[in-house]
Amino acid sequence: MKIVVVLYPGGKAATSNPKLLGAAENALGLPAFLKGKGHKLVVLTDKEAKLDKHLPDTDVLVTTPFWPAYVTKERIAQAPNLKLVLTAGVGSDHIDLAAAAAHNITVAEITGCNVVSVAEHAVMQILALCRNFIPSYKQVLEGRWDIAEAVSRAHDLEGKTVGIVGMGRIGQRSAIRLRPFDVNLLYYDFRRLTTVEEEVLGVRYHLLDDLIPRCDAITIHCPLTPETDGLFNRDRLFAMKRGSWLVNTARGRIVDTLALVEALKKGRLGGYAGDVWYPQPAPPDHPWRTMPNHAMTPHVSGTTLEAQKRYADGIQDCLARFFAGKPLERDYLIVDGGKVVSPSYSYAFKG
Amino acid sequence: MKIVVVLYPGGKAATSNPKLLGAAENALGLPAFLKGKGHKLVVLTDKEAKLDKHLPDTDVLVTTPFWPAYVTKERIAQAPNLKLVLTAGVGSDHIDLAAAAAHNITVAEITGCNVVSVAEHAVMQILALCRNFIPSYKQVLEGRWDIAEAVSRAHDLEGKTVGIVGMGRIGQRSAIRLRPFDVNLLYYDFRRLTTVEEEVLGVRYHLLDDLIPRCDAITIHCPLTPETDGLFNRDRLFAMKRGSWLVNTARGRIVDTLALVEALKKGRLGGYAGDVWYPQPAPPDHPWRTMPNHAMTPHVSGTTLEAQKRYADGIQDCLARFFAGKPLERDYLIVDGGKVVSPSYSYAFKG
Repeated sequence: MKIVVVLYPGGKAATSNPKLLGAAENALGLPAFLKGKGHKLVVLTDKEAKLDKHLPDTDVLVTTPFWPAYVTKERIAQAPNLKLVLTAGVGSDHIDLAAAAAHNITVAEITGCNVVSVAEHAVMQILALCRNFIPSYKQVLEGRWDIAEAVSRAHDLEGKTVGIVGMGRIGQRSAIRLRPFDVNLLYYDFRRLTTVEEEVLGVRYHLLDDLIPRCDAITIHCPLTPETDGLFNRDRLFAMKRGSWLVNTARGRIVDTLALVEALKKGRLGGYAGDVWYPQPAPPDHPWRTMPNHAMTPHVSGTTLEAQKRYADGIQDCLARFFAGKPLERDYLIVDGGKVVSPSYSYAFKG
Repeated sequence: MKIVVVLYPGGKAATSNPKLLGAAENALGLPAFLKGKGHKLVVLTDKEAKLDKHLPDTDVLVTTPFWPAYVTKERIAQAPNLKLVLTAGVGSDHIDLAAAAAHNITVAEITGCNVVSVAEHAVMQILALCRNFIPSYKQVLEGRWDIAEAVSRAHDLEGKTVGIVGMGRIGQRSAIRLRPFDVNLLYYDFRRLTTVEEEVLGVRYHLLDDLIPRCDAITIHCPLTPETDGLFNRDRLFAMKRGSWLVNTARGRIVDTLALVEALKKGRLGGYAGDVWYPQPAPPDHPWRTMPNHAMTPHVSGTTLEAQKRYADGIQDCLARFFAGKPLERDYLIVDGGKVVSPSYSYAFKG
C-alpha cells in the first residue's frame, strides 16, 4: 500500500518537540507504526503539485483541517487506486464527499479527538471579546495605562445571552463550560435536542433567525456543508444585536468574508474571534487579518499537543483496521459503502 | 462635608460614554447624587500633590484599586477631619489600615461588586496561557501561518491540575467556572472551607508549599496583607512545576517582581498573566511589560462597565447612610470603631 500524508511543515519547533505529532516531521508517529509492515509512506507539506504527482498510485490519503489538502473531484478522478481518505482531526469539508462516495472511497475522521480543545478555545475567545482582552494587553506592550480606554468596551459575560449555532459534540461541550458563567444559553441545530438534554445543558431552542437578534454573543459549532456555506451572510450578520460578538471555530466559509469586515467597520458587530479561515493557510493579505476588533488565531484550536496525540492514535487505529480488513470505528465514518453516512454531512442544516 | 474622590482620567472615552462611571469625568454619578445636599465634591486624578493640598479639610475620601491613591499614615496624619475612606472596588491594601484604625477612621469597600468580573478574567487568562493564545494571535497580525510554532506550546486545560490560592468570594467563583473544564482543583486558604463547601466546589485542600509543585496552573485570589506581601517569592516561584502557568488578578506585590522575570526567562514558568502591578499605574519601563510569555493587562479585571455600575451604586449607598448617621452595610466594613474588622485583613494568611 502507498500511504500519502499531507501535514503542516513543523520546522524547528517539530524537530525539537516530538510531541508535535501533527507536523510533517513527526508524521503522526507513522514511520515507527508502519516500520516492517511493507507499506510505502510519503509525507508531504505541498498540497498541490507534489500531491498531484503522487495521486495516480496512492492507496490511502491522510490530510488535516489545519493545513487542508483540498481533495476535489478532479483529484479523486486522478487517483484510481484511492480506497481510504482519513482526516487527522475533525471536519472533512475539504474533501468532495459526493465524489468520494461515487468512487466508493471510504472517508473517515477522528471524531471526538479535539472536541474539548475547540470548546475551550471558543469559551476563551468569547471571554476575550466580551472583556476587551486584546486591546488591554496591547496597552501593556505599548507602555500605556489608560483604564478608561480599556474598559469602555469591557463587559462581564455574566447575565449575557449566548447563542450556540450547531449543538453537536463541540456545541454541547461549549454549553457545559459556559453555564457556570450565569449566561442565558440559546441554541439552534437542525436536530433539536431531547427535552432531557436541553434541561441538563440548560439551553433553550430557537430557530436560527429568531435566535440571532437575541444574542450578545454567538458561537458557531456546525460543520461546513452546502447548507452552512455562507450561513452567516450579510443579512444575518446585520441582524445581530449592535455591538454583539461572534466567535467561529467551525469553518471560515460559514461566515461571509467581506460582509463580516463591513459589519465590524460599521460597529454592527463589537468583535469577531475564531480560528478558521478560507482558504487555509490564509494569505498575508486576507482581509480578516486587518479588520477592526478581531481576536483571531490561525487554525490551531483543534490541534493542541493533547489533541495531536489523540488524532495520531486515531489515524493509526484506522490504518491497523484497514490493513487487517476490519471495519473502521463506526463513529469515525463519514463516507462508507458508496454513501455519506455521517448525519453531520447527510442531513440538511437549515435556518 | 467635603468629599474628595480620586479616580482614573477618562478623557474622550469617558465624555462619550456615561457608563464609564469609574472615570473622573463621570465621578461615580456623585455630582447628580450630591446635588442640593449641601456638600462639597472635589474630583481629582492627581494622587499626590493635589490630593495632599485637600487633605487638611477632607471629611470623606473615595479611592479605587485601579488608580490607587496610596493613603499612607503620613497622609492620614495630615487629614484631621477624615472620618470615612471608601474604596470604589474591592481591595483596600492601598490604605494604611492600622493608621486608619488608630485615627478612628471608618474604611469600607464595595464587597462583592466585582468578584464575578475578576473570576471571569482569571479563567480567561488561564485559558490564554494554557492555549498559547497571544502568540497565535500575533501570527495573524504579522501575516504568518506557522501552525507548528503556535501549537508547540498549546495545551488543553482539560485534565490539568489548577491551584487556587485564596478561596474567598473570587476564588470560589473561579472554581465554579473552572470545574466543567474537567480540571483537578486544589486550593489553599488560611481558613479551610467546610466539608460541604469543598464537596460542592469540587476542590481539595493542600498547604501552600505542598500545593505549589503539584499544579500546572495557579491562580491567586488572596488580598494583599503583610502576610501575603511577597508570598510568591523566588523560592516558591522556582518550586512551581517546570513550564506551569501563574495568573495573578489579586495584587502585584504578592509576586516578587524580579524573581518572576527570572523564572520566565529561565523557562521555569511557562507563562504569567494577570492584571495587577506595583506601583499602579505601572511605569512604561516596568519589567513585567517586556518579560517573555506574559499575557498581562493593566488593572482592568474588576472594572468592567457592569462592575462600575455596581461600585458606583455601592459608594452612593455608603454616603447616604453616612450622611444619615446610619451604619454602613456590614459586609463592606474593613476598619470600624478603631479596629480592623474584616477577616480578610485581620487574620494572618500563612503558607
